[in-house]
Amino acid sequence: MPTIVVDVMPKAELLDPQGKAVAGALARLGRSTFTGVRIGKRFEITVDGAADEATLAEVRQVAEDILSNGVIEDVVGIHVVEDRG
Amino acid sequence: MPTIVVDVMPKAELLDPQGKAVAGALARLGRSTFTGVRIGKRFEITVDGAADEATLAEVRQVAEDILSNGVIEDVVGIHVVEDRG
Repeated sequence: MPTIVVDVMPKAELLDPQGKAVAGALARLGRSTFTGVRIGKRFEITVDGAADEATLAEVRQVAEDILSNGVIEDVVGIHVVEDRG
Repeated sequence: MPTIVVDVMPKAELLDPQGKAVAGALARLGRSTFTGVRIGKRFEITVDGAADEATLAEVRQVAEDILSNGVIEDVVGIHVVEDRG
C-alpha cells in the first residue's frame, strides 16, 4: 500500500509563535547558526490501491479541505513515498 | 539563507491517536481510499551561511536532541530546501 505524504505549513506572512519559541530556545542554547524556525504538520496517508493521478487529486482535495485550515495554513507539498507493501 | 526541513514522525510501533481520529473522520466522510493516517511535525529551519556538511550535522543533532522526543518520535528526514535568499 503506497504512502502519500502531505506537508502543511503556517502561511508565511503569519506569526508562528511555536516556531519563535523554538528559535529562541536554540539561541539561548548557543545555536546561533539557526536564524529562524517554522513548525508545521506532516501527514502520512496510506492508500488502498495505486497512488495514481485520481488518488493524488483526492488527497490534494482532502489536504486543502480537511487536513489544513486554509485561513492560516498552506499545503506546501504532496508526494508519494515508496510503497512499504 | 538556505532552509533545512526536518521531518519528525511518531514511532511506527506507537499508537497515533491524532492519526486515528483523522482516519476515522475521513472514513465517516466516505473517503474509503485512505486506510491509515499518521501525523507528525515538519520543521523549516533557516540557517545563516551555507547548508554544508557541518551545518547538516548540527541540524541532525538538534533534531534528535531538541526538536523530537526520542522515546516516542523518530527523525525521518532532513533535507535542504532551495535557497529562498
